[in-house]
Amino acid sequence: MSNEILISEVGPRDGLQSIKPVMPLAAKRAWISALANAGVREIEVGSFVPAHILPQLADTAEVVAHARTIAGLTVAVLVPNLKGAEAAVKSGAHKITIPLSCSESHSLKNVRRTHAQMLDETRNIVALIRAQPAAQRPKFEGGLSTAFGCTIEGIVPADTVVRLAEEMMAAGCDEVGLSDTTGYANPVQVKDLVRRVKRAVGDQNLSGLHLHNTRGLGFANVIAGLDVGITTFDSSMAGLGGCPFAPGASGNIVTEDLVFMLEAMGLATGIDLPQLLAVRKILSDALPGEQLYGFTPDAGLPLGFSPATKRSAAA
Amino acid sequence: MSNEILISEVGPRDGLQSIKPVMPLAAKRAWISALANAGVREIEVGSFVPAHILPQLADTAEVVAHARTIAGLTVAVLVPNLKGAEAAVKSGAHKITIPLSCSESHSLKNVRRTHAQMLDETRNIVALIRAQPAAQRPKFEGGLSTAFGCTIEGIVPADTVVRLAEEMMAAGCDEVGLSDTTGYANPVQVKDLVRRVKRAVGDQNLSGLHLHNTRGLGFANVIAGLDVGITTFDSSMAGLGGCPFAPGASGNIVTEDLVFMLEAMGLATGIDLPQLLAVRKILSDALPGEQLYGFTPDAGLPLGFSPATKRSAAA
Repeated sequence: MSNEILISEVGPRDGLQSIKPVMPLAAKRAWISALANAGVREIEVGSFVPAHILPQLADTAEVVAHARTIAGLTVAVLVPNLKGAEAAVKSGAHKITIPLSCSESHSLKNVRRTHAQMLDETRNIVALIRAQPAAQRPKFEGGLSTAFGCTIEGIVPADTVVRLAEEMMAAGCDEVGLSDTTGYANPVQVKDLVRRVKRAVGDQNLSGLHLHNTRGLGFANVIAGLDVGITTFDSSMAGLGGCPFAPGASGNIVTEDLVFMLEAMGLATGIDLPQLLAVRKILSDALPGEQLYGFTPDAGLPLGFSPATKRSAAA
Repeated sequence: MSNEILISEVGPRDGLQSIKPVMPLAAKRAWISALANAGVREIEVGSFVPAHILPQLADTAEVVAHARTIAGLTVAVLVPNLKGAEAAVKSGAHKITIPLSCSESHSLKNVRRTHAQMLDETRNIVALIRAQPAAQRPKFEGGLSTAFGCTIEGIVPADTVVRLAEEMMAAGCDEVGLSDTTGYANPVQVKDLVRRVKRAVGDQNLSGLHLHNTRGLGFANVIAGLDVGITTFDSSMAGLGGCPFAPGASGNIVTEDLVFMLEAMGLATGIDLPQLLAVRKILSDALPGEQLYGFTPDAGLPLGFSPATKRSAAA
């Protein structure tokens, strides 16, 4: 188990795309700056999709431009296709992720593309990225979604996930990640699938998990991931966005609770927890009436709590 | 890791004592019968405390009498002292737990007794139990509460917990359990403390954990417990009772989500999940307006879900 964990905050993308209100650009900028100030080192700030599909993320280029001014921050974006990747490269994002749904039915329903077509698109994006000057090439991740099960197909065979991971790496991705899009994963499955994919693509090429808390197992699955060498976890501040399949249930795992758990376990996130908790005010101000999730924010920190990350008062 | 896990349902005691409304006796009976019907094998049905302190549990003797009629069910109760134990023995409960707060400040505040006084009381209860005919002796557990931290003292040293576990066993308890009364525990601490206590009192004498989800870590802590050989987990249907330190936050871990997690992991609980989920209706009918927690009940079971426990349709 590594002693340092990277938390990749996906609230500005995954959270905001899942709620109706559009957060004003100024609030997005303030939120991202405040997160970085609290010690968050990677933020998925938006995605490059047509504005008529996701008006909430129509200003992603401007958001990237702002985030890029923050020293030390890795600015990540999601793209569904080559066109999105062109915009992402132009924006100067440091990291680009293309999701590939391991359930082909889900892929067809979501982006109207087969696995073969998505792999073609991935190769096109790789070509685009490799055509950039070396210093400007973003990191390119293949995000294997519905890796732990699908609401249309049910069980997604581990062999399918392993094969797609290999094919995404062969297509030129720098790394792959596994996403529990549907909140189907359990800790035994997480360990098993992570081990299999690592064996197939190499240990260093699978570092990240994107877990949901749809059935309350999000943090149990984090523990399973830690046990098999996962060092990057996606999470969303305030669990923003909820889950379309479970009204009232949180979708993404909650960043605040994740930081609390890891820090309590002696795993340094680099994030100052009291400062992070204070950032929620930006959300509640900018998104009035929106449900903010999280247990630690309600309960407060334990008396005598000693985080793994020690930051100077000046930080 | 064992392939069979015992879930000890504590909702009728821990849940009901934490809410204002008093559940009518008929509803308690129906609830307990329905839980047992769904496959729950152990239920903490109440506690023997003065009615003016916990009017919600004033009918515990009647509840025990009903629960004892259910074949195969272990009927457990909590007692704070010898007087409670006398009532418990008289009721015919199969298992009696006395809580001992590892934080002495918490013990003094809660039951106005020092550790030494609680150990005396424990010895008196042991004498009472041993005076019963062998066939009627209930199992006697020492429940070490605030074992993972205390809202008054903060950190509770592991050495203190280990010493108290040894002293409770020496006083004549059949086994000890560890309770995260305050929701302070984290998975690293759970593994460490369980290992230490098991080493001190013997592997077979610590089988159970009572975990709270106050800061969202409940199931992560279950995974840690499983990893170090814990085979019994307390939980509360619908997370009933909430947490006084965190308004809106669930206190006990939620039985429905726990069963889902364990069954998904291939660990048999003996509980039929769809049948268990249906039991919530008794709660919502009997406790109108009371918050029912749980993610799995909202989200539903995954498509293609295959539980570890297979029960015949006739069961």
